[in-house]
Amino acid sequence: MNALHTRLYEALQPWRNAPGWCVALSGGLDSTVLLHLLASLTQRETLPPLSAIHIHHGMQAVADTWPAHCRELCAALSVPLQVEYVQVAPGASLERAARDARYAAFMARLGTGELLLTAQHRDDQAETLLFRLLRGAGVQGLAGMPVSRALGAGYLLRPLLGCSRAELLAYAQAHGLVWVDDPSNADERFSRNYLRRQVMPALLRRWPHASATMARSAAHLSEAAQLLDELAQQDLAAAQMPAEFSWLSLPSLALPTLRDLSEPRQRNALRYWLRPLTVMPDSEHWAGWRAFRDAASDAAPIWRLTAGELRRSDDRLWWLAGDWLREPASLSAVVQGNQQLALPANGRVRINGQLPAGNWQLGYRQAGEQILLPGRGRRDLKRLFNELRVPAFVRDRLPLLRLDNQVVAIANLPGLQGAADGSWQLHWLPPTNDQGLS
Amino acid sequence: MNALHTRLYEALQPWRNAPGWCVALSGGLDSTVLLHLLASLTQRETLPPLSAIHIHHGMQAVADTWPAHCRELCAALSVPLQVEYVQVAPGASLERAARDARYAAFMARLGTGELLLTAQHRDDQAETLLFRLLRGAGVQGLAGMPVSRALGAGYLLRPLLGCSRAELLAYAQAHGLVWVDDPSNADERFSRNYLRRQVMPALLRRWPHASATMARSAAHLSEAAQLLDELAQQDLAAAQMPAEFSWLSLPSLALPTLRDLSEPRQRNALRYWLRPLTVMPDSEHWAGWRAFRDAASDAAPIWRLTAGELRRSDDRLWWLAGDWLREPASLSAVVQGNQQLALPANGRVRINGQLPAGNWQLGYRQAGEQILLPGRGRRDLKRLFNELRVPAFVRDRLPLLRLDNQVVAIANLPGLQGAADGSWQLHWLPPTNDQGLS
Repeated sequence: MNALHTRLYEALQPWRNAPGWCVALSGGLDSTVLLHLLASLTQRETLPPLSAIHIHHGMQAVADTWPAHCRELCAALSVPLQVEYVQVAPGASLERAARDARYAAFMARLGTGELLLTAQHRDDQAETLLFRLLRGAGVQGLAGMPVSRALGAGYLLRPLLGCSRAELLAYAQAHGLVWVDDPSNADERFSRNYLRRQVMPALLRRWPHASATMARSAAHLSEAAQLLDELAQQDLAAAQMPAEFSWLSLPSLALPTLRDLSEPRQRNALRYWLRPLTVMPDSEHWAGWRAFRDAASDAAPIWRLTAGELRRSDDRLWWLAGDWLREPASLSAVVQGNQQLALPANGRVRINGQLPAGNWQLGYRQAGEQILLPGRGRRDLKRLFNELRVPAFVRDRLPLLRLDNQVVAIANLPGLQGAADGSWQLHWLPPTNDQGLS
Repeated sequence: MNALHTRLYEALQPWRNAPGWCVALSGGLDSTVLLHLLASLTQRETLPPLSAIHIHHGMQAVADTWPAHCRELCAALSVPLQVEYVQVAPGASLERAARDARYAAFMARLGTGELLLTAQHRDDQAETLLFRLLRGAGVQGLAGMPVSRALGAGYLLRPLLGCSRAELLAYAQAHGLVWVDDPSNADERFSRNYLRRQVMPALLRRWPHASATMARSAAHLSEAAQLLDELAQQDLAAAQMPAEFSWLSLPSLALPTLRDLSEPRQRNALRYWLRPLTVMPDSEHWAGWRAFRDAASDAAPIWRLTAGELRRSDDRLWWLAGDWLREPASLSAVVQGNQQLALPANGRVRINGQLPAGNWQLGYRQAGEQILLPGRGRRDLKRLFNELRVPAFVRDRLPLLRLDNQVVAIANLPGLQGAADGSWQLHWLPPTNDQGLS
């Protein structure tokens, strides 16, 4: 085995039990070499079934010949190939749109636990680093492309990330491989190409090992990012004590615990917490966090981010998105017992048990309303909400049950959600933070 | 005030009570602008006394005219100037040698709490970042130049780090300033100049704000570095429980506590701990750490680093440098009571109290020796050392007292360091880790 085989083999060790390996094959130098390497490994070792996928973007006429090239290549190596035709949404960045379309196709292709193998190498990693530096990225971004990550139902692996483009080229030449040349790689309107053609050569003239050292920096930062995540987990664990309103099923943190941390540590914890929820705020946006955090508790502050917003209620913060940010349609429904209703932009409500005969209506609160508590008289809804510390963003959404226009139950609030004898209950399933339209 | 004044003023706020501000004045554009800005601030505000220092490296003939230029400039602004002539040690990197000589002169100049102000700006920061990336630096290095840091008895401040070179140039032109041009800035044999002249222009053509975004990355990484230090402090606190041999006054850590951490976290903690002790190990050197950590406890492993080495003893690690790495000369000195002796490469020893008359000699242990304990008989030295867990690197250095060639006392070991009645004691002050020759 040559050096490339050995490194590939090592990178693949943890993935030998995947149900399938699928190479993302553009037909260019890098992925052609990766496919060839894997095909020859497969001949020597018992490995998961190997396949390939070629994505046709339909963005340039010359690419129309690539599927045929890939078919020929795969046939010669006895690797089954799937060719996928995707639409690239026009927009600000063609690069990004093409990438998005490609990854969507990959995700659709991957079965549970299957591995998609892409051929990015060390020089690509160096370019990525430089590119992100030019966007002012932080540790996470400057850690570069990870060797592996989850993708759809499976995983993405970049087993050649430690190898240079020169090594791949030498391998291709030694094995007489044929590959297609993507002319768009020479188009310097694409930032990546500009970096590769205008900047990297200037660096490599003076520092021939620039790609390797830059990739080393990326590895350092990847380790640092991992440590910062550990610190965030530790800091968040303390802020995630169970909330009173856990039935809201919303991401929520205790503010006092966060406040006790230094500002950089607050940002680190929040960045980690927000990562699965929304695009990260830019450095300038952290002023918004400070305003949100320091607002008076009765000011009901909001911190708006790309995919949703943070609300405060007493000393907790809550992440709201999807239907939570849509005004629920006004509600006035005549109901009976044992019934379930979908509430537009407000989840679902269930009446468990049999309601006595009468004029029952489901709705939301109105100004100045009172609830009639059997044997306890009338109570002001607003006061009740204050006493129970019901978060402000919930109050206008809490389904109420009225009998003859008099509120007699409030969904989910202990002691108020149904009949005193337990014969019926009003149960609300709040909306989720899902981004899809309900 | 213009924008430059405002930002300078803000950067200087925390330093208004320093006993003096001293500008590092090369006579070039940047430092000339800094001096002019500060001189005009001084006219409007009550500020610490302002002075300037010019370092003459004697490296190029053209520089011989710069002291006169600086004198003229300072005279016009009524700022006292000191001109310092330094020798640059020839060596591998002239840049580094000149920098070292310059900073040595600055350190010598600074009184307690005084501030040295240097004129590095945002474009310098971007170059620093790129330069360190090309050396494969980690978070600490990629955080770039700090705005302020300790320097000698005082501090170094870079108040213009947020300003671009273009802003400084515009200011200089607007105020009709005159400055000297250092022709060595055009010498592309210097890496910095190569970056500035060959790489940065290619970046700026495509990303006009490259310096600003790169500086933003540096700021992110500086914050990350601070957080990683907090994590290290937390992890080290647990490993710094007092050692049995605290009188050794050596940096020491409990190994089991370190072992319990993930590998990246071990490295982070050790990097932090080693930072004041030695140049940091390269990524490749961490294999040495693993070998050191995982060696059998009786293997007496050593991890050699630039300025010293780590030794293990039982479950602790110890940092040794200076005299600790020098073989102490053999010792055989006739002694009396109440006496102090300097031991070559091994600190000092004191005999406290009056020794009875007799043939007393000070020395180190010899193979197979025993100690005579009054009323307790003879004990094997080696066994005693094992029982007391005396670190191996200490055993051949522990001063012993012999009476008629028979060991009767071992310095510093409880119960063994002197007469049973306490009338005399042998006390050893071990060497320090100081790098200077003793």
